Amino acid sequence: MISRRLTRPVRVGSVAIGGGAPVSIQSMTKTDTTDVEATVRQIRGLATAGCEIVRVAVPTIEAAKVLPTIRREANKVPLVADIHFHPQFAIAAIEAGFDKIRWNPGNIRNPVVVRQVVDCAKERGIPIRIGVNVGSLDPEVEAAHADDLIEAIVESALKSVQLLERFHFHDIVLSLKSSDVRQMLEAYRRIATRCEYPLHLGVTEAGLPDAATVKSAIGIGALLAEGIGDTIRVSMTGDPLEEVAVARRILASLELRRFETNVIACPSCGRCEIDVVGITQQVQVRLTELARSKPRALELTVAVMGCVVNGPGESEHADIGLAGGGGVGVIYRKGRQVRRVAEAEMVDALIDEVGRLLHEQEASVASPVATH
Amino acid sequence: MISRRLTRPVRVGSVAIGGGAPVSIQSMTKTDTTDVEATVRQIRGLATAGCEIVRVAVPTIEAAKVLPTIRREANKVPLVADIHFHPQFAIAAIEAGFDKIRWNPGNIRNPVVVRQVVDCAKERGIPIRIGVNVGSLDPEVEAAHADDLIEAIVESALKSVQLLERFHFHDIVLSLKSSDVRQMLEAYRRIATRCEYPLHLGVTEAGLPDAATVKSAIGIGALLAEGIGDTIRVSMTGDPLEEVAVARRILASLELRRFETNVIACPSCGRCEIDVVGITQQVQVRLTELARSKPRALELTVAVMGCVVNGPGESEHADIGLAGGGGVGVIYRKGRQVRRVAEAEMVDALIDEVGRLLHEQEASVASPVATH
Repeated sequence: MISRRLTRPVRVGSVAIGGGAPVSIQSMTKTDTTDVEATVRQIRGLATAGCEIVRVAVPTIEAAKVLPTIRREANKVPLVADIHFHPQFAIAAIEAGFDKIRWNPGNIRNPVVVRQVVDCAKERGIPIRIGVNVGSLDPEVEAAHADDLIEAIVESALKSVQLLERFHFHDIVLSLKSSDVRQMLEAYRRIATRCEYPLHLGVTEAGLPDAATVKSAIGIGALLAEGIGDTIRVSMTGDPLEEVAVARRILASLELRRFETNVIACPSCGRCEIDVVGITQQVQVRLTELARSKPRALELTVAVMGCVVNGPGESEHADIGLAGGGGVGVIYRKGRQVRRVAEAEMVDALIDEVGRLLHEQEASVASPVATH
Repeated sequence: MISRRLTRPVRVGSVAIGGGAPVSIQSMTKTDTTDVEATVRQIRGLATAGCEIVRVAVPTIEAAKVLPTIRREANKVPLVADIHFHPQFAIAAIEAGFDKIRWNPGNIRNPVVVRQVVDCAKERGIPIRIGVNVGSLDPEVEAAHADDLIEAIVESALKSVQLLERFHFHDIVLSLKSSDVRQMLEAYRRIATRCEYPLHLGVTEAGLPDAATVKSAIGIGALLAEGIGDTIRVSMTGDPLEEVAVARRILASLELRRFETNVIACPSCGRCEIDVVGITQQVQVRLTELARSKPRALELTVAVMGCVVNGPGESEHADIGLAGGGGVGVIYRKGRQVRRVAEAEMVDALIDEVGRLLHEQEASVASPVATH
């Protein structure tokens, strides 16, 4: 249902960004980069949690020096070096085998220096993200658009794009972050109409987890729903693993990716006749277990409904549904009632029915009907 | 920055919906309505947490009978009766002094019966929300738009609107909920262009809190950012107080309302030289305390930044900012450096500076410069 903006693809190690590739999830290590052991542990932890591209800050010469070790120890996790004031660290990262450079065009503007980095990136075939941040805009561009901050953000990105294009470099990703959700929405919408490069979405400095989750979901989610965005980073003042969990939920909410079975559950109310919260929690756990052996379980939508108002309707739209009330649960399969069970058996019956559906789907794949 | 859609206002007790009124927050009791004590306790708890309109399900005659008691015990909290199959319960709720009726047009369609409810609502001057839910659409409308579910949702709402308008009733609020974020986005966008009634936004059956937070933030937030939406309900399988907390965060993220001081904080990374997480948590707590005596603290934006890259820029855009690094914190006020303090004094110095700014603002309000 979402028609995605067509963008020019780049590769970050094993992960494609843009060109119709699945929207990828990024995060950033929060360790002192020179603490190699802690940094590598966090990179691996992030990758295990579902982070597909990990960014590492390179603020000092000491950090630049440990990049080859980090690269080697991080196995094949796609790594990005985050560069601000010191372009020579970008070259160090590229030579260390990093898969992408992020630089802030507000802080690196000298064309001679930019060309050195670009030539190095081109030689190794790695992309560069021009990461504009409203907190560190190119001062000249900011002054030229003093009455229109959004235009300053967009122009700051485009000015760097033009510089890279002048050096025949096109493996570009762009980000235009602000801590103000309205600003980032508008900035990304404008740039989306003015170039074909893939976009890395994020709300920057989004705050503590509760606030950051909501700000990021609105900012990133609204753009993705419009088809804008190729890779995302949820930014929060807290555990980076939680950033990844929220990023996954954003993508799953819009059905852009699936990481667990989609469970629809009613909020429960005075109409509710079963323990929807408890049953939903059990169902989610059981489905996660099931998906380990049967990954196609991830593709299903399962409904848990506690009343006769929306229950039958929602259950009919789901692959498997449960509408419970009056001590009885009705199990639906693709909109058809298939079983009636007592409350104590609802969870087992629902999971059984999911298993049966998956089994039949597998069987029909194994022996397809002949086509002409 | 958000230009809100102009809508026809209605009143729900002391709260206005539409016509430029602040976007209000709703939730729903999850108790058995006939358990009056528990229901009233939850209504009061919701109101204390910031819920401005509370909905109560009226599924049975027993529930309808306790409505006068609930109305009386709930003091002045605006109350909505949620009606599905039994229009006579709507009349009971109106007579009990409820402030609004929500009915599901998929379940109540007989014009004679609708007219009775409408006449009763008109006499008491209370509005009706036509609450369309994809799980319980008007079967005739659904059949007529079998190839376009969004149109079925929109037409189901408009068909009921026309019925109410035929009886010269215009105190209408509309909702078009789906558990699919993409569907609800599209349905609300369409109806927004086809009538002037205020819209109640929500993603229905959004699931357990983690998923529901993200789904609701995207669905409700994306529409609000476009200027669509007059009142919101975050729906989750869990504690309704958490629904209210998330609703507040959505409104605050878009600067539509302020419930606490806006704190911008960097996510911390390898560049970070201070304990941003700890400092931000302390700052948030201290600002919440401060706002009790100085409510104008809510209107400020405070930045806590852990490095020299985005720190100065973000701090300059904030009312009061802290950029820490190398054991020193620089306090900014309206973009101007005002103090340098040691790390141990950062929180106190920041809060001091906030207090000083508020004090001066109060003084300038008390003795304004003469204008001509």
